[in-house]
Parts: sequence; structure tokens; C-alpha cells
Amino acid sequence: MNLIDGEKLTLGTCYYPEHWPETMWEEDLRRMLENGIEVIRIAEFAWNKVEPTEGTFTFDFFDRFLDVAEKMGMKVIFCTPTATPPAWLTEKYPEVLNARIDGVIYRHGGRRHYNYNSPVYQEKAALITERFAEHFAHRPCIIGWQIDNEINCETDVFYSQSDDKAFRAFVKEKYGTLHALNDAWGTVFWNQTYSDWSEIHIPRPTVNNVNIHLLLDYTRFVSHSARGFVKLQSDILRRYLKPGDFITTNGIFSNVDNHAMNAESLDFMMYDSYPNFANMTGGTPDPRSLRDRNWSRHLAEVRSISPIFGIMEQQSGANGQTHSGMAPTPKPGQITLWTMQSVAHGADYVSYFRWRTCTFGTEIYWHGILDYSSRDNRRLREVKEIHKKFQSLKPVAGAHYEAKVAVIKDFDNIWNAQEDVWHRTIEAVSSQGIYAAAQHAHTPVDFVYLTDELPAPDLSRYSVIFYPHPMLASKTRADLLQRYVENGGTLVFGCRSGIKDLNGRCVMDLLPGVFRELTGADVPEYTPVGPEDKHIVVDWEGEKLKVTVFSDELDAIGEQAEVLGWYENCYYAGTPGLLVNRVGKGSVYSFGTTFPEETAAVFLRRLGVAEPYRNVVEVPECCEIAVREKDGHRFYFVLNYSAEPAEIVLGEAKTDLYTGETVQGRVQVEPYGTRVYG
Amino acid sequence: MNLIDGEKLTLGTCYYPEHWPETMWEEDLRRMLENGIEVIRIAEFAWNKVEPTEGTFTFDFFDRFLDVAEKMGMKVIFCTPTATPPAWLTEKYPEVLNARIDGVIYRHGGRRHYNYNSPVYQEKAALITERFAEHFAHRPCIIGWQIDNEINCETDVFYSQSDDKAFRAFVKEKYGTLHALNDAWGTVFWNQTYSDWSEIHIPRPTVNNVNIHLLLDYTRFVSHSARGFVKLQSDILRRYLKPGDFITTNGIFSNVDNHAMNAESLDFMMYDSYPNFANMTGGTPDPRSLRDRNWSRHLAEVRSISPIFGIMEQQSGANGQTHSGMAPTPKPGQITLWTMQSVAHGADYVSYFRWRTCTFGTEIYWHGILDYSSRDNRRLREVKEIHKKFQSLKPVAGAHYEAKVAVIKDFDNIWNAQEDVWHRTIEAVSSQGIYAAAQHAHTPVDFVYLTDELPAPDLSRYSVIFYPHPMLASKTRADLLQRYVENGGTLVFGCRSGIKDLNGRCVMDLLPGVFRELTGADVPEYTPVGPEDKHIVVDWEGEKLKVTVFSDELDAIGEQAEVLGWYENCYYAGTPGLLVNRVGKGSVYSFGTTFPEETAAVFLRRLGVAEPYRNVVEVPECCEIAVREKDGHRFYFVLNYSAEPAEIVLGEAKTDLYTGETVQGRVQVEPYGTRVYG
Amino acid sequence: MNLIDGEKLTLGTCYYPEHWPETMWEEDLRRMLENGIEVIRIAEFAWNKVEPTEGTFTFDFFDRFLDVAEKMGMKVIFCTPTATPPAWLTEKYPEVLNARIDGVIYRHGGRRHYNYNSPVYQEKAALITERFAEHFAHRPCIIGWQIDNEINCETDVFYSQSDDKAFRAFVKEKYGTLHALNDAWGTVFWNQTYSDWSEIHIPRPTVNNVNIHLLLDYTRFVSHSARGFVKLQSDILRRYLKPGDFITTNGIFSNVDNHAMNAESLDFMMYDSYPNFANMTGGTPDPRSLRDRNWSRHLAEVRSISPIFGIMEQQSGANGQTHSGMAPTPKPGQITLWTMQSVAHGADYVSYFRWRTCTFGTEIYWHGILDYSSRDNRRLREVKEIHKKFQSLKPVAGAHYEAKVAVIKDFDNIWNAQEDVWHRTIEAVSSQGIYAAAQHAHTPVDFVYLTDELPAPDLSRYSVIFYPHPMLASKTRADLLQRYVENGGTLVFGCRSGIKDLNGRCVMDLLPGVFRELTGADVPEYTPVGPEDKHIVVDWEGEKLKVTVFSDELDAIGEQAEVLGWYENCYYAGTPGLLVNRVGKGSVYSFGTTFPEETAAVFLRRLGVAEPYRNVVEVPECCEIAVREKDGHRFYFVLNYSAEPAEIVLGEAKTDLYTGETVQGRVQVEPYGTRVYG
Repeated sequence: MNLIDGEKLTLGTCYYPEHWPETMWEEDLRRMLENGIEVIRIAEFAWNKVEPTEGTFTFDFFDRFLDVAEKMGMKVIFCTPTATPPAWLTEKYPEVLNARIDGVIYRHGGRRHYNYNSPVYQEKAALITERFAEHFAHRPCIIGWQIDNEINCETDVFYSQSDDKAFRAFVKEKYGTLHALNDAWGTVFWNQTYSDWSEIHIPRPTVNNVNIHLLLDYTRFVSHSARGFVKLQSDILRRYLKPGDFITTNGIFSNVDNHAMNAESLDFMMYDSYPNFANMTGGTPDPRSLRDRNWSRHLAEVRSISPIFGIMEQQSGANGQTHSGMAPTPKPGQITLWTMQSVAHGADYVSYFRWRTCTFGTEIYWHGILDYSSRDNRRLREVKEIHKKFQSLKPVAGAHYEAKVAVIKDFDNIWNAQEDVWHRTIEAVSSQGIYAAAQHAHTPVDFVYLTDELPAPDLSRYSVIFYPHPMLASKTRADLLQRYVENGGTLVFGCRSGIKDLNGRCVMDLLPGVFRELTGADVPEYTPVGPEDKHIVVDWEGEKLKVTVFSDELDAIGEQAEVLGWYENCYYAGTPGLLVNRVGKGSVYSFGTTFPEETAAVFLRRLGVAEPYRNVVEVPECCEIAVREKDGHRFYFVLNYSAEPAEIVLGEAKTDLYTGETVQGRVQVEPYGTRVYG
Repeated sequence: MNLIDGEKLTLGTCYYPEHWPETMWEEDLRRMLENGIEVIRIAEFAWNKVEPTEGTFTFDFFDRFLDVAEKMGMKVIFCTPTATPPAWLTEKYPEVLNARIDGVIYRHGGRRHYNYNSPVYQEKAALITERFAEHFAHRPCIIGWQIDNEINCETDVFYSQSDDKAFRAFVKEKYGTLHALNDAWGTVFWNQTYSDWSEIHIPRPTVNNVNIHLLLDYTRFVSHSARGFVKLQSDILRRYLKPGDFITTNGIFSNVDNHAMNAESLDFMMYDSYPNFANMTGGTPDPRSLRDRNWSRHLAEVRSISPIFGIMEQQSGANGQTHSGMAPTPKPGQITLWTMQSVAHGADYVSYFRWRTCTFGTEIYWHGILDYSSRDNRRLREVKEIHKKFQSLKPVAGAHYEAKVAVIKDFDNIWNAQEDVWHRTIEAVSSQGIYAAAQHAHTPVDFVYLTDELPAPDLSRYSVIFYPHPMLASKTRADLLQRYVENGGTLVFGCRSGIKDLNGRCVMDLLPGVFRELTGADVPEYTPVGPEDKHIVVDWEGEKLKVTVFSDELDAIGEQAEVLGWYENCYYAGTPGLLVNRVGKGSVYSFGTTFPEETAAVFLRRLGVAEPYRNVVEVPECCEIAVREKDGHRFYFVLNYSAEPAEIVLGEAKTDLYTGETVQGRVQVEPYGTRVYG
Repeated sequence: MNLIDGEKLTLGTCYYPEHWPETMWEEDLRRMLENGIEVIRIAEFAWNKVEPTEGTFTFDFFDRFLDVAEKMGMKVIFCTPTATPPAWLTEKYPEVLNARIDGVIYRHGGRRHYNYNSPVYQEKAALITERFAEHFAHRPCIIGWQIDNEINCETDVFYSQSDDKAFRAFVKEKYGTLHALNDAWGTVFWNQTYSDWSEIHIPRPTVNNVNIHLLLDYTRFVSHSARGFVKLQSDILRRYLKPGDFITTNGIFSNVDNHAMNAESLDFMMYDSYPNFANMTGGTPDPRSLRDRNWSRHLAEVRSISPIFGIMEQQSGANGQTHSGMAPTPKPGQITLWTMQSVAHGADYVSYFRWRTCTFGTEIYWHGILDYSSRDNRRLREVKEIHKKFQSLKPVAGAHYEAKVAVIKDFDNIWNAQEDVWHRTIEAVSSQGIYAAAQHAHTPVDFVYLTDELPAPDLSRYSVIFYPHPMLASKTRADLLQRYVENGGTLVFGCRSGIKDLNGRCVMDLLPGVFRELTGADVPEYTPVGPEDKHIVVDWEGEKLKVTVFSDELDAIGEQAEVLGWYENCYYAGTPGLLVNRVGKGSVYSFGTTFPEETAAVFLRRLGVAEPYRNVVEVPECCEIAVREKDGHRFYFVLNYSAEPAEIVLGEAKTDLYTGETVQGRVQVEPYGTRVYG
């Protein structure tokens, strides 16, 4: 059985047989199946159940459980348990533990306290993976495997002795010579030059900060380490898996190239979706914030890795941990809403976290479908209703999300922006602004990653591409974009594009560096926008686009590019702030500043890509529209995130897939309501 | 001489002979006595004066001082000096020091930097205690002893190696087997199972947080350690004390069961009262805040340990330390006001901190009665006036504070709420709300502690008892409450009652767990209140009680309980939010949410316990009324916390104890003024 | 060539030959000279270029560069490179590194990570200094030397093992006996008495805080260490310097007595001036804040060390580091404005940081005159214009800043206030308030330091001196001030004067202690101003001066002093708040509280020192006036910090030095514009 085979939508849940009396197992599975749950995930934190002391393996516990699962007809996703090493392991081998930047070791008692580079941990993790695989992989109820749990969750930085050693090897492999490393990192600045490999270390406490280029390579190293750890397990699992069984993991978290990880180790990516993080108590909600709707952005990130994916953990109750956070129980309709949000963006499998709320430990308040008492409740009834809807949505399975607008991302810029405050500040405005503008204009958006390790993505399917602030850039990437534009694409750049190479060193070149030819633009001067610079705008044919954070003063190189907008209310008033360059059949827009939501909305409208489905279904701002397409047939998802009913208008007669009825004209969608039209 | 013998009220002060030239001693004592100060406390930080180097004991200094005291007729409370180990001790034996959670040792230079569990420190502390006792205890001027100083002040967490070892022993003693410990702590969650006792540690740095059940036992361990350290000294002192001399300590601080400590080691409890902590500069005063009046709440806590108690340190000047905090000098009348606040709540001894302000060290700004210059001043004159008032208040001595309303507390819930943010958030609203409502409604309130180690408290004296959020509960406690209600009591529960056992594990049971029979209530669902859930109320016969933080959706089990209030403005509108269950001669109210002040005020009024003394003396909101009762005679304290005069009305003719005059009708009480009527 | 010879104003820049291809050197120097830049500073972070591995010295790199400099006719300030030890050094000798207070070592990768007291580092630093000096000092192009870079920048606290040891030696040297030390530090408080020198340590982690007197001596120790390290290098350099070549360093930073350092090791002080720190993004500008104009205050501090000084780093571009901060590019005119601000306050040399912006490392965003591309730009054109102005300003060279008002400072009070929150809070209000009031009233102000190590300053040149809060004081200082007043001076004290001795111990004396005779004042009581004390004022003949933070209740001793102002709206209403005492030909004002700007403005006006140049040139509030005087001739600098034009009025006919024209009456000064009249 493949979960994402294009034939059906499937419901699952996360189950912890070790948390409950064995006498409850059969009844739990019976109730799941009765309510439409066909798959469970188990064992991701259960190392001790199989290896209770070092080298002693016992498989009885899960054998008994799998017997029950097979008896009841429940399908199982089995996990490797490496996210939580046993106490006996970390007590005996503290070298397997992660550490703070100042060397203090993180101890047993939380989770993910290990480091990826410890030879001991790699050996122990490989052994338990092999034991799990060789003993359990043949079981008929098992349909696939999850490796570890939430790679780089909890922490995405590692400072153990093993990491220090491995980092040295990583950069030695990358640069070959100290000369090349010193050059790439600009160590001549502040006399940081290394004269021996032994002088090189992971980031450690320093007065002032750590070299920005080292930090960029350090993050690449963390990603490399995480991927290597996943691949270690994947390679073992592949040797034991039954034909057809898949390997996945659940994410997605920072400081790891999930695209490369997926390509080299997984069959597809799963995601853990908790939209009510947006409603943790204590926050003061910004009325323009996307709140739970912002999870669509996260789902678009998952889709960039696996066009069709699964949700391994979908929120089904209140969440929070004992020491932080407190979010409400999903309101009636919200479990359905968030499930359909996942499906709308490409999920063909949705598994709720978790069957029943744990009665002990850190996640007492991370609620499942059922409360502690196990009584039937409103949330279980809603799950059963979702299962019914899933039956009617079978044609959607395998359909691909449709977007004509894309935002390009790459890990070089993402990781540089994490450390570089000038980069981060700019990027934060635009990445939030463009996505919010697209959502409010009902304009589906894809994220497209440029990853040097993987084949270049196909950009030709997009009418308009934003690449807001590629501060780090290369000729190869400029060439790829050149081809896209020449073939008719529209490309939009913001400020600071092309100022650095892929090591994060500024180019000694006229700006925007490698993008000069493509943009036809010159940047003779630039400036951050200061706290007293309050009213600066770029005037674009009468529309005043607010200038925040940064200004590139632009100029067209020769006659090549056309000036569309000019700065106002600043000392560089009258200087161009927006250019367009015609290249082949396409166009390149260079905008001298950032893209807050109001600005991005103007670009979407003027470039003709806003509200592409308005003629089919017109919705108020509070609703999201997502479209999945398969064999020329489109499925329109309407998702109402609001506590108020929403009136939508179907411009064409469409089938409501939930009811099978044909509808046209005005339709009332209840609070938190969803519709799928086909 | 016993300070709290029911015969008199006594004034004292804290004196540091080691801080001043010996030539000043006699004059200082003379001035004290002249101004009504009859008792001094000495020596609590004076280890070096007796043991200047290891094993060298010299008693001359205090012998000379006690000679002067005896010559002048001053009574003395002597202290053990263990709060501040000498530099020679900590330098030679760093193992006696406390540490940060990451292992960094706290060094000499502050105070309370030792740990309770170091065998070396226990030995050294026992030795100095014995030497003090055997040399000084016979002195006629000594009337009692203070052990150490402010147990668990400065820090209430301990992470030394000795603590690590002692914690392991503590839980081994408690649980007997690893199996029992693993079960109690729910270690199967996140694979935290222990397979050897050596794997168990005090909290250490972890990624994510530490197991909540371990943390609860850790706090119990800290309390156990502190109590053991006090008992070690108390047992020694008892062997040397003159008949009639008392043992006390001054507090009260967190993470120690002061009730048990008092029962096993002390004769009665003393308190250090600094109401002007409420006026540290920098704060923006909330007009509804109780500010200095909130110290009545702290005094009620002390009274729950010792119905008649002493104030070892009563604020008499501006306070703050060199590195933090800055509170004003008491305004004219405030020293009297705060002194009478202490007396009103049960203090028969009040000792000012300190005679003269220190001219060096961390507490240069922690002012005493006198400033550095030692000149006579306004504050000393006010102390002399207080002494006069104390003469007229003799009949009050030994009288008990009278309250018909109680709030139940227990350390299981207090300590769980410190770590558990869901628990803490709820508790914070209600504990502040109920006390403020009672103060503003002039309704005296007692705190009553359920401590399993001590005999059950007598609840029958209270008409109404609040037990706002006993998340942790036991059958024994439910039974105790059942008997109280059956005999005619009224008991009020808020949300989340009974969801856990005493290990902090959630019960796999219908809620409110052990309180189901008592409340006649069921909780089919519940939810935190999110930032967008703004207008939810419970309607109680037309009064709209605001729902904050959390909602239990209630239901009556069968016909047993009566619904009094319903939720409004939420998806569970129409669900019961308030039930009353008639049990025997009494009633149990179950309220689905928290008790902010406005809500608590409605309960006090509707349950008929608000303003019990209105017919005797009616006061504006700015005044507190407290009543002490003895042999059927009541003493009414009126305390005006306001900077404005207050008009009060005596409904009956009463004697003003300060003046001896009989008064009735309207009386003007000056700003910060006090009255005692009998 | 001496840079500050009173003959000319000179422009320079900071250059890093090691950051650029050697092929660019000649062209860079040519362009500098072409634009008026005659001096460069080099080599302050270039240790590795001369000693790439331990003990291997190679001078080729800088020999080649100096050849080019000499060929082009460029003058050079050479630096010792000790601010950034090489990786090989810190890797082999970690003892040379500084540490956090908890012992964690700061590692290679930032700058200034060494400690001053490591014998190894002192040896290595002496050796590289000597090698630099013996090899380069004879070069004709070199005109002077900078020692290290920005002493105590980045961090001003040191916690290495070497510091611990050196601190023990420092206090042993200072106090001689433990008894004296125990007495000075008041260690009897909290039983901190030391019984052996080995028990004494630099500040370490403590529960609660560290002894305030130890902290004061610790800061003195840091200053002592820094000075010793500079003197070590200066002594070496003096042995090699060509006649006429100077030694300087660039600062000024905290925890070092720059006055003493300058006197013992330097020829004059240089300063690094970055006024756009005031416009870092993120801040919300207070409309009354001085912002970039506040740098005049910093320049006045430099002037207190060296009446004529240099600017080693003058801001010429946007600033910020990769990990923090983002300030705009100087607006047109601002480089000139800030340069003239420096000149107006006494700088005869101004060197821009830096020639071209670095393309790698932490300071990618700390822009120079040129951007990464090296293209000619607006900022370079402005520098060329400044050079032209400098030609016309030749007569100003060597002229001294003229002020009739001074504020006295001393390191005892500055360093005590850093740790003592009561001191700090008071001082913060007054030091900001007095300077802002003076600026807004166009009243030049000097800072005058009382440093016991140096000869007493000449106070007689000032009409009015503020010594706002000398909490720490001595009889010597009181006598100096007495002589100043007797000779006709006016001295103004604020609250808390004289309450401590120079160890920071409060005096057991009537207040204001050593200032009693001078002030004729008594302070019977005092109090912090609490959060509820909102409307307290001192009425000074109808003007209501707001009382913030603290009140001394004042009284005249006998008939000696006259009461000028009384407190209102508080319990001490009617008590004197302002006294004046006539002493000899002068007056001493005692003010019972702090000097916020509004209060300070009243004092300046009533004491007749506000707007001293109003008859010559009258300017709006947004403009600063500074006057330099030489041989009886005054030069009036008008600096417009505003983004708006300012109208000024010349009351007398004056020469505009930029144009040579004679002007009188109304003049429009453009936004950010400057004028110099002579």
C-alpha cells in the first residue's frame, strides 16, 4: 500500500502502545477504524522497549502490538527511535550529547539531545535501526517507515566535541587548502587567518561575533550532518524493506536542506501541521496577520519538496507543553478546516496527532483527538465526518497544486539571512509581504528552490517569479533566470540583489553584480532607511509604494531599461526606484526597496496575476482559494478561516464534491467552513 | 520571657554589634530602650567573629556585647550564623557551595551560597551551632534563638554535586524501586525510562525542558533538604537552651514546607515584612493593585503557620540593594501603618530592621530606623509613638485573627504550578483575584494548608471555603472536604479541579476526577481561552462573569446538581458554567473558569460573607478591616493605606484603644492612619 | 610632521593594504591625495602579516607598501597589532584569552579577546611591538604610532585566571594588610571577611551580588591593567621613534582612566566618532534627544584629555556589523557636519573610516568613503569639498575651545555609579539633563576631571561649575572646590553629595559630609521618589522644578546659607530644596534633587551663563554654537543638525571663513549646513 498513490485520501493517527495498558490496544484500534482512521504511526520514541539495557534486544512488546494491528486490519508506519536515546546510553557515553555554544552539555531528560557526528551515536543508532528493520520490516501491516522524528526540531545548532572535529573535516574537504579557506572566509579581516587546520573550530563564545562566512559554512555543515544521519538510517532500512514500503520523515525544520535530504534518503516528505500555534495565549493578534492561514505558507514549503505529501501530525486538540504555550482546543469545524488546508496544498494523507492525550510527561497538554478519559467527544465525531468527506474527494488524490506565481528561495540566502541582520531585516519584510499579499488576493503561490546539488527546477510553468533579495548569487543562477525571462517569463527583484558571492563576500563590482545584464540596472548608491526617514515612497504611475528598511538608488545602464518609478520625499528624490528591462520575450523588474504587503499587492495586480480564479469562484478576503489539477480537471478548495460566515459566488456551475450537488451563484460558507468544487 | 505569651505587644530591632565601634554599643542600647525597644536580634551573619579561621573559636566579642546588653537590661534573640559561611570555609571546601543548573559554582561574596546537602557543610554548621549554643545559651539576656536567616531567600534551587547525590537517595527512599519511579514520572514518554539509579539526577541543562513529575519531586526534595538543615540545628539548640527560650526562624520563602518545618523544629514562625517593595521605583502602579496592602496576604500566610507570630524584620526606612531596587522612605505614618498591619494579622512582636543603616556592603540602601549619621530623626520619633500605642493595645495580645472565609492551599499544587504553565496561569488569576476581592469587600480571609504530613486542619470554623484550582488531588483530600460540606460548609471549586494525581499525572477518568461525587459535576470538554476569545462570560442570574484563561464545559451528573450559570458568546454558549451541588447540610459550587477580582466579589456577595463587620464599622474601599478575638472580645483594626484621609462610620459605640475614648458615628482617619477599637 | 601643530587642519583615512590586491595600492593612494587626504593609518589588525607563525618574522609586505606610500608622498600612522592576536597564538596559549565571569573562555574569531594580565600575552605583545618598531620606525613616511586599537572596546571586564591573580596582587599592593582591605570593603557585612590573601578573587558568579567596594576596586584594577598594557608598548616605541613622531591611541571607552593613560603613555588622544549610531534602525527617536548632536558631548570628553586632538575614525558611510545594527548612509552634508563638529570641539586632524568598504568579515556594512565597487561617489566628492574648507580654516588650527561652564567628573563616581543603581539612576538624569540644556541654550560646556594621580585642574577659567552628584568625595577635593569658590566661582551641587568616602563607604557623619562647610547645608532626611510621588517640585521664586528620582530634605546650618527654594506637593512640603551659600567671592548652590533638562536650563539662565554668544550670532535651537579661541581671536562654528534650513542672525559683521566674505544680519543655513565665522 502506498499512502500517496493518487488513488485516495487517507486518514491516520499517531499511537503510542507503550503509553497505555495492553488491554486497551484492541479497543483503541477498533474505535479508530470505526471512525475512518486506517493508518497509525508508532515507536518513534520507543528505543527502551526494544533495547532496555545496552546490547539486550527484546522484540516481544512490538511483536504483540503488531499482532493486534494485523488482527484488526490496521496499517502501520514504523519509526526508528533515534530521536530519544536511552538514559543508559547517554549516561555511559556523554560524548553522544549535544552541547551549548559554551560547552555545557545538554543532558538526558528532553528529546533530541544527541549530536549527529558522534561516532558512538552513529554506531548505536545504526545498530538499533538495523535491529528494528531486520525484525519488523517483514510484518505485513507495516506500509512504511519514519526515520527519527522531526530532524532539527528543538535545536538546530550543535556544539559538541564531535561536531567540532567533524566541522574541521567538512571544511577541509570543501576547501582543500587553508589558503582557499582563508580567502573564502576573508580571515585577513581582524587578523583571523588560520595557519593550521587545528585552529579551526565550530562557533565558540567570542567577544563580538563570529566570522559571518564561517557561520554560513557552519550552517551548511549542520545540514550536511543531519542529512548524513538520515541517510545512514535510510541505507540500512532499504536493505530490509518489503517492496512498496516507503521511507519518510516528518518536518520541516531549519538548518537542513530538506530537498537534498528527500532526494537522497526519502520517498517523500511528511509535515507536522499545528496551525493553532498562531493562537497561543498571550499574543495580541494583529488584524492583518494570517494566523492559522499562514500554515498554507508552510505547506507550500513542503510541496516544494514533495508535490504530493503527507501530514504525519495534524493538530486535533489544544496544544502547549508543560513549561510553555497554551493554545485553545480547535473550535467546531477547525479540525476539518486545517485538514482541508493540508489537502488543498497537496496532502493525500493526513494523520492526527494523537489518538489520545498523554497523561504524563512534557506533552500532557499537547492534546490528541481524545482527552485523558478516552470518552467519545466532539473532535472524534468531526474526524469521522472528515473521513466521509475524504471518500467524496477521491478524485482529488494525486492532483497537483496549481500556481502561476512563484517565489524563488535558496539555502545560501536563507542561511546567510539568519546570521546577517541587514539581510534578515530586508528579507523578513518581503517574504511576509509577498505571501500575505498573494493570500489576500487569492493568488496561489509556489516556492521554488535553487539548490546546487539538485537539477535546476522547471521555471517555465510560472508567469511571474519573485526573487526578492538574492544577496548571494552566482553566474549559474543568473543564467538560469536569463533563460526563463528570454522564454517569456516575468522576473521581479528587490533591493540588494547580487551584492555577494556564494561565500557571502561582497563583490568588488558594479551592482547588482551578476544580475547587471539581466536587469539592465546600475546601483550607484544605497542606504538603509533610518528611523527619521518616514515618508519615503516610490511613485509608480501615481501609486505610492512605501520604502522601508533599505533603498537602492537605481539607474538604467545606457538606454537598455525603462524607468517606471521614482523616489520621493528623500535626498535622492527623483532617482529611479523601479526599472523594467525587456529581455527576449520577457521582462525583468528591478525594485529598489522591499515588498511589504501593500507593495506586493500592487505588483501582483499590475503584473496581471492577481485573483486568477475570480471568474470561477469569487470569495471575500477571509477565504483562501487553492486549486489542485489533474488530467485537465481542476478542484477548487474554498477555506473560510473566519469566525464569521462568508458569502462566495460561483461564476460557473460546479459540483460540490462533499454533496455531489451542482451549484452556481451565491453560497454561504459557515464559520471555519470549507468547500471543494470540481 | 516569651515574646508571644499573650500578655503584651513588644518592640524590637535588629542590631549588628560587629558593624559599629564597641564604644557605641552602650549608647545605642540606651537610646533603643528610651524609645521603647526592648529586644534585639544579633549575630545572624557573624560566623567569623567566633570562628575566624577553621577550628579556632573565640567568644570574646559577643561575650563583651552580651555583658553590655545585660548591663543595660536589653533582651537578645541570638542567631546561628550559617547563612553566610566564611571565606576560609568555601575557599577550602568548594563542595559546600551551591551551583547554577549548568554546574557553575556560586562563590563567596553574596549570602546563602551554600547547599543544604554537603556533608562538610552539615558538619561545619553543626559545629558552629553547638559552639554558639554551649557558650551563649545560658546568658540571662538571651530569650530565644533564630536559626540561620531567611531559609531559601536569594535562591530556592540547588544544583551542587551534593544535591545530585542526595536527590538520588531521596527518590530511592520515596519509591523503593525504579519501576515505581518510572511509573510515577511517566518516563516512558520520550523514552526517559531509567534502568539504573545512577542515571537519575537533579535537573540539568536539557534541550526542551525537564520532566514535570521529576521537577515536582525535585521541589519536594529542596523542601526536605531545607527542613533537614533547620532540624539539624534545632536538635542541637534544644540540648542547650534555657527553659522558656524559644527557637524560630524568619521567612517565609518558596520551595519549603514552612508548616512542617515549624512543626518539627520551631516554636513559632517569624516574618520579614517590607511592604514598600510595592513602591520600588520604575513600576507603573496599577490603580487596583493592593500594593503595600498586599502584605496582609503575606501575613495571612504566616498566620496559617503560627496563629500568633512575630515580625523579625519590619520595614523602617527606604529599601533596595546596591545593585537593584529603590523604594522610598516610609512616609509619616507608614511605619505605624505597617506595624499595625502586622499586629492586626497576629503579630505580638514587631522588630524593626534595623537600628542604624549600614555604611558598607550590599545593603547600604536597606535603611534602618536611623540613617548613617545616627542622629535622631522622624522615624525614631514614630517608633517611640508606636511603643506608646503598644502599651494601650495590651489587651490585644494573644487574640486570634477572625475569618469566616478561607482559601485552601497545598504544596503539591503550589509547586506544580511553579513549573506547569497551564496550572500557573490559572492559579495566578484566581489567587490574586480572590484576595483582592476580599480586601476590597472588607472580608477577612484565612489560608488553610492541606499538608499530608500534619493532622488535617479544622475547617468547621469557616462558612465558605474556596479551593480554586486543585489540579492535583487525592481521595483523602476529597473525603476531608466531603465531611466539611456535609456538616454545613460551602465549598467553591474553579476549573481544572481534580485532573491530576499527586504525582502530577493526569487521571484517566471522567473529570473532575476524585471530586466527581462531591461536585456532582461532569466536564465533557474543556479549552484554554485564546487571544481571539474576548467576550466569553458565564451568566449567573444576570451577572456576567468574565471567562479568562480557561473554560471547563460543565454538566450535572444526572439530576444531582443544579445549574446556576451558563456560558455565553462562544461555541459552547448554553453549556453550564456554574453548578451547585447540595451535599448533606452544605453546598459545593463548581465554576468552569477562573476567579478574577470582579468574579470573586460576586461569589463573596452571593454567598453572604462579604463585609461581615459593616454594622460595627463601615469603611471606604481604601481601608482594611481586621479583627482579632480573645475570650469573646473583638478588637477592630482599621488601616488606611491611602494618602488621603478616610471617613469611617462606627455603627456601635466602641472604645478607641489608642485614646481610651468611646466613639460612635463618623470618624476621620488621617492619611496612612490606623485605629483599633475594642 | 606633527598632526596637531597648530598650523593646519589635516584630512586622513584608514587604509588596509592587506584587504586589497597590491595592484590597487598605488591607484588608491593617488585618488586619496587627489581628494585631499594626506595621511593614512595602517596595520592595526595585521599581526599575521609580520609574524605568520610563532617566531617567524617577515617584513616584506609592509616594506612594499611603505615603498609605495613614500613614492606617492603619503604620510602614515603605523599601529601595533595587539588588538587581534593570531589564531596560532590563542590556540597554543589559551591563557592569553579573556573569559566570561563564569569562567567560559572567549575564543579566537572576534577581536580584543585577549586579557591584559597574561604574562605570555605581555611577552608576545612586547615582542611584536618591538619588531614593528625596530623595523619600521625609521621610515620617513611614518609620522606617528597608534597603540593597539580601541582599548576596552568590545568588553571592559576581564575574568581570566591571569586577571584573578593580578587583581590579588593589585589589592595587596593597595592595602598592604588584610585588615585594611577588610575595613575598606566593609567585609564584616554578610561575613565576607578575608582571612588569607588567597581567598580574594575578581568578581565571580555569586548568589545575590558582589560586594560594591570590591567592584569599585575591580574597575580601578581594569583601568590599571589597561594602562599598564599601553605603557608597556609606549615604552618600547619611545626607544625607536624618529624625533617628532607621536604616540597616540584611539578611544575613548569605559573602565579606563584615559587621562592618566594619556599623561603617562601618549602624546595626545585620538577619538573614533560615529554620530550615526544615533540613527540605528529600530529606535523611536525622542524629539528632544540630541541624537548625532550628542557626539559633541563625547568630543567634550576627548577635549578634557587633550585640548587639541585628532579623530582617528570619522564616520563616512552607513554603519553596522553583520550581526547587529543598521544606520543610514550619511545624508548630503552630514559628513561635513560631523567633521566640523569634530573640528569645532578641538580636532585638528580628521581621518575617515575607511577608504573603501571591506568586502568580507564582520564589518562588511561598516562603510567607508567608497563602496565595494570603488567607483567615485557622492561621499568622496564631499570629502574633497571638506578638504577645500580645511584650507580656508587654517587660522583655526591650534585654537582652544572656549567654555565658561564646566561639569566636574571623576572616575570614583563614574565607576561607582556603574554598579550602584541608586547612584546610577540619579547621575543618569543629571548628566543627560545638564548637557542637553546647555546645548539647547547654546552654552558651551567643558568636562573637567578630578583625578588624584594628576595635578589638580585649573578651575578658575569657569564662571559656573556643576558637580551634580559627587556621592564619593574627599577632603582634598572639597578643599580644591572651596578655593575655586572663594576666588569668585559659582558651584552647583545636586542631591546625595558627599555621602560616601572614596571606597564607596557611607560616612557616619552629618550630610553632605565633607561638603558641609562649603555648602552650609544640612540634610536631616532624604528619600527616593516613588512611583506614586508624581507632582513634587521645588519652587524657586515661582519656577517649579520637577523633583525626580531622589529628594534630599535640606536645611541651612545656622544662618549661614540662604534658602532659595522649597519643596511642594509632598509630605516634606515647606522644607528647603535649594540653598545658596556665599563663600568668599563666590557662591555654592545646593539643590536637593536631580537636574533634568528643564531644571538645568533654569540654572543656566538664572546663573547668567546661558547663550553667551547671542549678541554675536543668534541661532535657533536646532543649531549648535561652538567657539575656538586663539591669540584673542574667536572662531564661531554654527552647526545645523536639522533636516530643515535654519535662519541665523549675525549681530556683528563677521568673516565667513569658507567664502572669505563679510556677513552680517540674517543668514540661511542649509539642512545639515555649517558655517565658521572669524
